[in-house]
Amino acid sequence: MNLRQDIPAMLPEELIQALAGNAWVRIERIVSRGHHSPEGFWYDQAEHEFVLLVQGAAELELAAPDERLRLEPGDCLTIAAHRRHRVNWTHPEQDTIWLAVFFAQ
Amino acid sequence: MNLRQDIPAMLPEELIQALAGNAWVRIERIVSRGHHSPEGFWYDQAEHEFVLLVQGAAELELAAPDERLRLEPGDCLTIAAHRRHRVNWTHPEQDTIWLAVFFAQ
Repeated sequence: MNLRQDIPAMLPEELIQALAGNAWVRIERIVSRGHHSPEGFWYDQAEHEFVLLVQGAAELELAAPDERLRLEPGDCLTIAAHRRHRVNWTHPEQDTIWLAVFFAQ
Repeated sequence: MNLRQDIPAMLPEELIQALAGNAWVRIERIVSRGHHSPEGFWYDQAEHEFVLLVQGAAELELAAPDERLRLEPGDCLTIAAHRRHRVNWTHPEQDTIWLAVFFAQ
């Protein structure tokens, strides 16, 4: 499989696909096409998340400490469990492809 | 961190760096510069390995069933625990960057 291929022509919502994993780890491809978190929405996850931006561009916002990160291809970070975060922006004219690995705290 | 950056000028051996993980999962960056598995060497790992080729080019060989896979950026696969495999070739003039996620069987 190639992460840059097999993306639907229409993408009314973000595409989330499980690629591999077991009871303790989940590896997913996420494709965003201008999608971003709803106004005022913050993720607050029970698992740690390692995320890699494979293609495209995005802005992440994280709380405690407050940070805004502009992500380019190759950028990656680990978001600790329960660290609140949101996707402020993804490139509106280009598919933004993420690889995310969720793992237990 | 950007997976394409902070690569040493000299790379006598493959670079392997732990990025994140816990007792059940290990996320690593691997950088190859023409490196390949020694003649006759096969990996036989106790863990599953999800691997993504981020940059560069490589040929993987897998056993049972026997396969040779030419990998380009964005290509990914999961190598099941104890499936024998080796890296036949990586691009000699370009850094090949892998993201690998090892997780328990």
